[in-house]
Amino acid sequence: MFKDKFHEAVKQALQKERWTITDDPLRFQYGNVNFQVDLALERIVAAEREGEKIAVEIESFLNPSAITDFYSALGQFLSYRLGLSDTEPERALYLAVPLDAYETFFQLEFTQAAIQLYQIWLIVYDPVNEVIVQWRR
Amino acid sequence: MFKDKFHEAVKQALQKERWTITDDPLRFQYGNVNFQVDLALERIVAAEREGEKIAVEIESFLNPSAITDFYSALGQFLSYRLGLSDTEPERALYLAVPLDAYETFFQLEFTQAAIQLYQIWLIVYDPVNEVIVQWRR
Repeated sequence: MFKDKFHEAVKQALQKERWTITDDPLRFQYGNVNFQVDLALERIVAAEREGEKIAVEIESFLNPSAITDFYSALGQFLSYRLGLSDTEPERALYLAVPLDAYETFFQLEFTQAAIQLYQIWLIVYDPVNEVIVQWRR
Repeated sequence: MFKDKFHEAVKQALQKERWTITDDPLRFQYGNVNFQVDLALERIVAAEREGEKIAVEIESFLNPSAITDFYSALGQFLSYRLGLSDTEPERALYLAVPLDAYETFFQLEFTQAAIQLYQIWLIVYDPVNEVIVQWRR
């Protein structure tokens, strides 16, 4: 799948910044909800650097309707953050978005407001050069 | 579409409780994001009763994977609430969920925690008898 290219690009980009990928995908559960069977969870990787732990939800924003992708990315992000808070409260969750989506849809007043209101931490990545362009929290 | 049955059931149920449907769908925008072109928005209706105004996001939870439907419903709900806060802060947004989903997936510890944390107000409806079973906020 084309999505795999984005997934690999983010992993490569993290490794270039000396992060070690520890789980791909990262699996966790909350009460009776077994996030292991959640297909969307395949997009989450865990990484570690000098004792710091992160989880990264990798989104491609390939849908022609960016807002539709955003609904699903937002719902997943807030669900995963809640799930992680129970099992690994020290692991910070980031949403990885490709540079072109960041420079367009993510600059809209609405998207900026949503990111601020719901405290979505972002990793902006360049899927072609496989580098991280910006960490934003 | 089968989804229309759920949409109509919620409208009928609201009317039985003396709500007047004022917009179907309810259209609004936030800055440059034109929610009018958002297909998911077709699921939002507006209603009014004795000066009280509500917006209702109607979900069917027909997907075999309830968690996938939940991500999208949550992301939409929080986006719409943000969008409405700009244009119609007095209009309360509810998520309408069918009784069977409410009695199963919505009883899980995770789902209860998410609803409480993100303050999701619910309308539980019976799609067969077209009545509202519970308002929960």
